[in-house]
Amino acid sequence: MAQDRIVLHYLKDSRASRIVFLFEELGLEYEIKAYEWTPELVAPPELKLVWPLGLSPAVQIFKADDPEPIVLAESGQIVQFILNNYDSEGKFKPESMRDQVLVDYYLHFAEGTLEPHIVSLLVGYVASQRAPFGFGWLVKLVLSQINSQFYLRKLKTALAFLNSQLEAKDGGYFVGNKLSGADFILDFPINENLFLNPYKVKRLGIDIDPSKDYPRLVEWNKLITERPLHVKALEKKASVMKNKRGLLG
Amino acid sequence: MAQDRIVLHYLKDSRASRIVFLFEELGLEYEIKAYEWTPELVAPPELKLVWPLGLSPAVQIFKADDPEPIVLAESGQIVQFILNNYDSEGKFKPESMRDQVLVDYYLHFAEGTLEPHIVSLLVGYVASQRAPFGFGWLVKLVLSQINSQFYLRKLKTALAFLNSQLEAKDGGYFVGNKLSGADFILDFPINENLFLNPYKVKRLGIDIDPSKDYPRLVEWNKLITERPLHVKALEKKASVMKNKRGLLG
Repeated sequence: MAQDRIVLHYLKDSRASRIVFLFEELGLEYEIKAYEWTPELVAPPELKLVWPLGLSPAVQIFKADDPEPIVLAESGQIVQFILNNYDSEGKFKPESMRDQVLVDYYLHFAEGTLEPHIVSLLVGYVASQRAPFGFGWLVKLVLSQINSQFYLRKLKTALAFLNSQLEAKDGGYFVGNKLSGADFILDFPINENLFLNPYKVKRLGIDIDPSKDYPRLVEWNKLITERPLHVKALEKKASVMKNKRGLLG
Repeated sequence: MAQDRIVLHYLKDSRASRIVFLFEELGLEYEIKAYEWTPELVAPPELKLVWPLGLSPAVQIFKADDPEPIVLAESGQIVQFILNNYDSEGKFKPESMRDQVLVDYYLHFAEGTLEPHIVSLLVGYVASQRAPFGFGWLVKLVLSQINSQFYLRKLKTALAFLNSQLEAKDGGYFVGNKLSGADFILDFPINENLFLNPYKVKRLGIDIDPSKDYPRLVEWNKLITERPLHVKALEKKASVMKNKRGLLG
């Protein structure tokens, strides 16, 4: 049986990052089509040809007997579909119904509850950078109030929750004793958005000290990022994204 | 076989609204435990006893032979689990793999891509209301720039996308020719957040004219809200929430 042809549409610095990790761990054959941000800091219009919203990640799956690809265009949906259809040995399959419930929870939590706060902090940062000359301080002042009362407070609550979930199971992966959809989906917000580049995080006004505030989450992050296929995914991304324009320059 | 005992934890004016519609359409027996917002406009701490993040909706499922409930705490995960486990006649089951892929897409899209923009517009509105005396205009000025460049623009893009998806299939429900998880998950942001109360929407700075801008979405909204069990769900919510404090007073 011919393997399905799988194409990952990858905008630099986007949530698509986690999908490379997923594909590498599954040993899938896949292609990456790389995109860069426009100078106006929006996704390029070509992405709309893949899926009308024009966001990344988007995955096209071409089956041998069907000219029309299946298109997946939300991270949680991608991870869920790929694991359901391409983890033929059940390597990452949860071991009980309760574990599956928990994986499904994280698949929705990462984009529905955690990531929006990080995005809003980024949007506020970009807005203060783009404010008319002399007004950046004013935008920062207004936003720092909203951030401390809402986005930053919510983000810290979500991180403390994740840390306590790991604490309760004495560390390791998020669900059971092995890698699962939960780890794939959380890789982007925790590793790439928050822990990988403390300087960038500080610029966004996120005043966290991961080793002190979320030690279990830091252990988890180490566990994930030291996996050989995570390292390979990072190298692959770097080589494909070379010379592409990212979101924060 | 005894039916599982199902408890919906429902904070007024929250995303839990859609779950009542889901339960009514499935003819499930369930209990509602109602909560009100605190005077500080946050969810009450009792919700943390159900699930540590303390958000709503949360659903507990008590099986006859197990003292420990299964807890579901993200809207998309709840709709998915409930449909997988309690739609025994397959009334709302998609008719093809491609339709299932699309339902799963919307289950992630509603909270991951659509709802965060509405929440940010609400957060901005609340911030401008709470600004120190005389400074509300300044907060509004700063936020109106960010809204028009980001949140409002993104929201309108998402609504136009939904409208075009319905247009492409010549109206009706979002997937196939029947109600599915897609309609259950989209009920809250489209109906309750945006179309039900045009005055509230204007207050948030959302300058849309649904019948003109998104006519297919308005038709869909009518189709959904005129279903007898949607009407029943609304009456049930009103009676349970009577005298409870809501988010916008």
